[in-house]
Amino acid sequence: MTDIASAPTLHDRALRGFASDNYAGAHPEVLEAIAAANGGHQIAYGEDLYTAELQNVVRGHFGDQAEAFPVFNGTGANVVGLQSMLPRWGAVVCSTTAHIHTDENAAPERVAGLKLLTVPTPDGKLTPELIDVEAWGWGDEHRAQPLAVSITQTTELGTAYTVDEVAAIASHAHSLGMTVHLDGSRISNAAASLGVPLRAFTTDAGVDVVSLGGTKNGLLYGEAVVVVNPAAATGITFLRKLDMQLASKMRFVSAQLIALYGGDLWLRSATHANAMAARLREAVADVPGVTFTQPTQSNAVFAVLPAGVADRLRESFRFYDWNTATGEVRWMCAFDTTEADIDAFVAALKRELG
Amino acid sequence: MTDIASAPTLHDRALRGFASDNYAGAHPEVLEAIAAANGGHQIAYGEDLYTAELQNVVRGHFGDQAEAFPVFNGTGANVVGLQSMLPRWGAVVCSTTAHIHTDENAAPERVAGLKLLTVPTPDGKLTPELIDVEAWGWGDEHRAQPLAVSITQTTELGTAYTVDEVAAIASHAHSLGMTVHLDGSRISNAAASLGVPLRAFTTDAGVDVVSLGGTKNGLLYGEAVVVVNPAAATGITFLRKLDMQLASKMRFVSAQLIALYGGDLWLRSATHANAMAARLREAVADVPGVTFTQPTQSNAVFAVLPAGVADRLRESFRFYDWNTATGEVRWMCAFDTTEADIDAFVAALKRELG
Amino acid sequence: MTDIASAPTLHDRALRGFASDNYAGAHPEVLEAIAAANGGHQIAYGEDLYTAELQNVVRGHFGDQAEAFPVFNGTGANVVGLQSMLPRWGAVVCSTTAHIHTDENAAPERVAGLKLLTVPTPDGKLTPELIDVEAWGWGDEHRAQPLAVSITQTTELGTAYTVDEVAAIASHAHSLGMTVHLDGSRISNAAASLGVPLRAFTTDAGVDVVSLGGTKNGLLYGEAVVVVNPAAATGITFLRKLDMQLASKMRFVSAQLIALYGGDLWLRSATHANAMAARLREAVADVPGVTFTQPTQSNAVFAVLPAGVADRLRESFRFYDWNTATGEVRWMCAFDTTEADIDAFVAALKRELG
Amino acid sequence: MTDIASAPTLHDRALRGFASDNYAGAHPEVLEAIAAANGGHQIAYGEDLYTAELQNVVRGHFGDQAEAFPVFNGTGANVVGLQSMLPRWGAVVCSTTAHIHTDENAAPERVAGLKLLTVPTPDGKLTPELIDVEAWGWGDEHRAQPLAVSITQTTELGTAYTVDEVAAIASHAHSLGMTVHLDGSRISNAAASLGVPLRAFTTDAGVDVVSLGGTKNGLLYGEAVVVVNPAAATGITFLRKLDMQLASKMRFVSAQLIALYGGDLWLRSATHANAMAARLREAVADVPGVTFTQPTQSNAVFAVLPAGVADRLRESFRFYDWNTATGEVRWMCAFDTTEADIDAFVAALKRELG
Repeated sequence: MTDIASAPTLHDRALRGFASDNYAGAHPEVLEAIAAANGGHQIAYGEDLYTAELQNVVRGHFGDQAEAFPVFNGTGANVVGLQSMLPRWGAVVCSTTAHIHTDENAAPERVAGLKLLTVPTPDGKLTPELIDVEAWGWGDEHRAQPLAVSITQTTELGTAYTVDEVAAIASHAHSLGMTVHLDGSRISNAAASLGVPLRAFTTDAGVDVVSLGGTKNGLLYGEAVVVVNPAAATGITFLRKLDMQLASKMRFVSAQLIALYGGDLWLRSATHANAMAARLREAVADVPGVTFTQPTQSNAVFAVLPAGVADRLRESFRFYDWNTATGEVRWMCAFDTTEADIDAFVAALKRELG
Repeated sequence: MTDIASAPTLHDRALRGFASDNYAGAHPEVLEAIAAANGGHQIAYGEDLYTAELQNVVRGHFGDQAEAFPVFNGTGANVVGLQSMLPRWGAVVCSTTAHIHTDENAAPERVAGLKLLTVPTPDGKLTPELIDVEAWGWGDEHRAQPLAVSITQTTELGTAYTVDEVAAIASHAHSLGMTVHLDGSRISNAAASLGVPLRAFTTDAGVDVVSLGGTKNGLLYGEAVVVVNPAAATGITFLRKLDMQLASKMRFVSAQLIALYGGDLWLRSATHANAMAARLREAVADVPGVTFTQPTQSNAVFAVLPAGVADRLRESFRFYDWNTATGEVRWMCAFDTTEADIDAFVAALKRELG
Repeated sequence: MTDIASAPTLHDRALRGFASDNYAGAHPEVLEAIAAANGGHQIAYGEDLYTAELQNVVRGHFGDQAEAFPVFNGTGANVVGLQSMLPRWGAVVCSTTAHIHTDENAAPERVAGLKLLTVPTPDGKLTPELIDVEAWGWGDEHRAQPLAVSITQTTELGTAYTVDEVAAIASHAHSLGMTVHLDGSRISNAAASLGVPLRAFTTDAGVDVVSLGGTKNGLLYGEAVVVVNPAAATGITFLRKLDMQLASKMRFVSAQLIALYGGDLWLRSATHANAMAARLREAVADVPGVTFTQPTQSNAVFAVLPAGVADRLRESFRFYDWNTATGEVRWMCAFDTTEADIDAFVAALKRELG
Repeated sequence: MTDIASAPTLHDRALRGFASDNYAGAHPEVLEAIAAANGGHQIAYGEDLYTAELQNVVRGHFGDQAEAFPVFNGTGANVVGLQSMLPRWGAVVCSTTAHIHTDENAAPERVAGLKLLTVPTPDGKLTPELIDVEAWGWGDEHRAQPLAVSITQTTELGTAYTVDEVAAIASHAHSLGMTVHLDGSRISNAAASLGVPLRAFTTDAGVDVVSLGGTKNGLLYGEAVVVVNPAAATGITFLRKLDMQLASKMRFVSAQLIALYGGDLWLRSATHANAMAARLREAVADVPGVTFTQPTQSNAVFAVLPAGVADRLRESFRFYDWNTATGEVRWMCAFDTTEADIDAFVAALKRELG
């Protein structure tokens, strides 16, 4: 898809970075799907044929009971999903590094009226034992009732829960009367990393509701709340609307999600992004002065650099500080990161450290 | 832009209707703009070059003080905008037919914590006198404080406020210490109808904050809160995030809005949609059995049909009942409604009534 | 109960007015009950013996299924009660004169996240027909779902629903899948006016949840949410706490409610207040210049006075304007209003009008 | 004040416990003050003479700028106070043991829309360094903005901040642009413990808003938001109403607060309760098997008992487990705890341990 004269390209497409997978644009196949869904009239607000077809796609991944509710963004998916799982007095046990706790300006609390009960983790991953730190006090009206667990897969630290780890969490949560939400904004990277289908660590592991990622894996915009266990969620159509996440021209969200999940685009793109992160890690593993704080199990590399290096390096490649006190940085790869990008970045890093 | 083999077109593009302007798809120039903005890396969450350029476009329309905050949808624009204008104890005076009252599942109340004080109107249009029905009680802690007025332009009944009417409302509201919000999901249709620039009935008339429409005039998705008077709004960047309306790949929302408002696409499309509604009205004006309930001042026709006709007609063309008790229906034209669409519809209507 | 030297009486007990029944103090029997419940230790937050006994009292009035949840004030009772009856997407049909709409600074919207769908009434009383004005649109995610009706007994205009009127409303609401809330801040005045037990127009008429009044009928503070139909309310203990209506020393709220409703104090006091209003109405019925806007069916008189009279009269007796445009005023009698109070007020009024 | 025949005393006044200071009743002087304020008519909702006089009392303690807003309970004081201090995007840094975090069923989040950013502490006390753990990220729209610090004095662990400790916190918070809230549900115990006036660790130390305790120190009910620094709080009268904390018969809340704080009742009662806790601690200090987890700086003793002892002891004296995993218990003394109560409890404890 080439530039069209009448619409200007304002940015320099050669500029690349490692700040976030949402700095990337949309995959060409996604734009094609939008074009194919365009033209003519389709019923708004989800009664279109693309949203109907999306249900088939989602059931192929998550089982026959699954239902998808497209929304605009990841925060929207998390908030609508969690709100549908919990009563007004509910609380969610999650990691202190969870996106819902650190990066959503308290939307779960302010919009959905939920309480987050956070537990520190070394690697972004909850365990049954860690959940127990906050999973108590049911029936006590003074305490926000911990009735759901939310895990992120892959985590905000780039780690991936194994299938067994998720299953242990779900089993434990269910035994306590709690349900399980999985924030899957990078769910494809997890499947690619683990080498298993999406359902292995969701439906088959006992997860009840999934925030199915799209934007970070090559959509223009769009995610979905996927209810895997219908008994665990109530009123999503109403909640999606009142939470301002109901797209009028929903056919285009659904068409993108079909493009991503209807074939193997989700896996191709995630596998590639993961491979680029692995390439980056490998290339700098032996560089003196660079250490790593997390295993590289998906498309993110967490490293510690000597003082001053990050700032100088950022003059050429944008990326985020993760912990300014320790010098920890995060390098994120996307579906469109190239080997050349990696090599140029590694070369620049080595120059700084040389 | 033609279909691409790898992405299926599931719907019949020949099917047309008059249900809503959001049943239409995206204008080809909008898709071109997205393609032009694609590729390479851009800072997420609004620090991209397209969102910067959008500011210039918006200032061209709304004046040098204006600032645009792209959001996902119209409900989001209304809620973020109104919330930024009001304290926690604030109330909004609006028409009983206002979209914020009738079609947003109480998002203004539930998400923004606002109270709506509604006033019946004959034509969807508030006046200073009608505002006074609810604009009282300042300082009384028992009463939600009416500190803003919200008008819709064009209204939900297809009528357009004149420039003088908006100016009178704004002047009156300001004299009472109230600010003015304009829900402009069909703002282009209003400008086309009135034959004036957008700023004539916004900035120049004293409106403080505008919900700038996009989706109903040919975008895939995307609207913007436009703050015309910076003194009237506080904290929008924070509110947009916590209200879950912050797009990560904002460049694509901004690129669409630039495509729409950077040239004359907004006016071309709205003028066309209005003309189609006028054609429809004219064609059925003399058909026995059809009466009209509102003047046709934009892209909507409100008519009353004999019992049974609407349902039979809907077998071929989808449209909405507006008042089932009276037989009132709404026919809405879009940027892509054709003369042939109108003629086919009129012919079908005449057959039913013949 | 006389003054005690160590605690000063700052106000002039001889000053009387007709502004509101909450300008009165506490009934001596209520203070006695507090004293009797004092001393020693009782479990906080409702596990005390007084709250247990209150259940017996409430069941005596409202039937064997009834359960009482003491709260601090009337707004608290209404909000906790309604919130327990409705999902997050719920709306309440009520009169435009309802206290929940006009006098609670949108607490139902802001705290409980509910939408109020208001209907104008001539006398503060809903009917099945009036309810139908807003009771529609179930299943439409764009519309706040009207799932409860709230009526006030006696109404904010001093009128009383008959038993049959309430029964008709409840029957209609239930047939629509809606539940019924009764704001009973003056429920005793209604029973006294109608000459029926409390259950006649609540439990027996099909009401599901009652806000049981206390403060306006002689308590220091305290009301109760009374769930008559347990199937209609969920999670009240949690909601009461999170809505900040859970008294730690609940024994004192319950002891007061027992004092009021355990014997005939509720009826004695209400009958007296009603009689005082009747005496007032009768005394001014033939005074030229005074007209009435509502029947006097409880402890309030709504009258229209010639211009200027109200302000002069208020120099001696405080009362509220109800509608400054029409000269309408409200005169409210309390459990402690005396015949002498009425006579003095009537004399003053006649002097002004003479 | 003796029992009155017509109102039954249902409970056994001889039963005593150490569960909480809100298991106690009301101080006789408080009941006297209520009786003195009774009778006649007073303007409702705070325009009464008692609430006016309360302002003088509060200014005597907290300085000439102070203003008191009576509310019903401690959660109400905290939520109204914090909400008045923070914008909709605000967050509060507090201890993980803070009452607002652990015991209010998320009312700060759900009702006030705030985010709590919690920091573990060894003794319930924040420090500038601990505050810095969460005080960062201003201007980042993704992060709830930490704009206030809330400390509890005395803390939920019975410890007391020194004057210097509070001053250091306030100075640090202000230097960061944050304001300071002090949850003073046991503020009198702190002053008694420190031997300083209330203003020493509030107004003079830089605290901006205080939740002034009442119920736990001998009121029937009632606390107050005291705004020490008017620049730090906005809209309290509106917030108090919409948060359902506005008492209609406010004269009685104010009369109680005058009784408590107008003379030395606050100090007498708190000094006594503290002394009883000290007596208890001393008496069991050398009992083998009992260890302490916190210093006893107010009216609470935190101890660890051997397995099984607590449950057997509770058959005679009610008290709370604090940490069932470690055997930690909390013993709380009240204004009405007697030396005989302590001695009987100690004897029972020794029997169990003997």
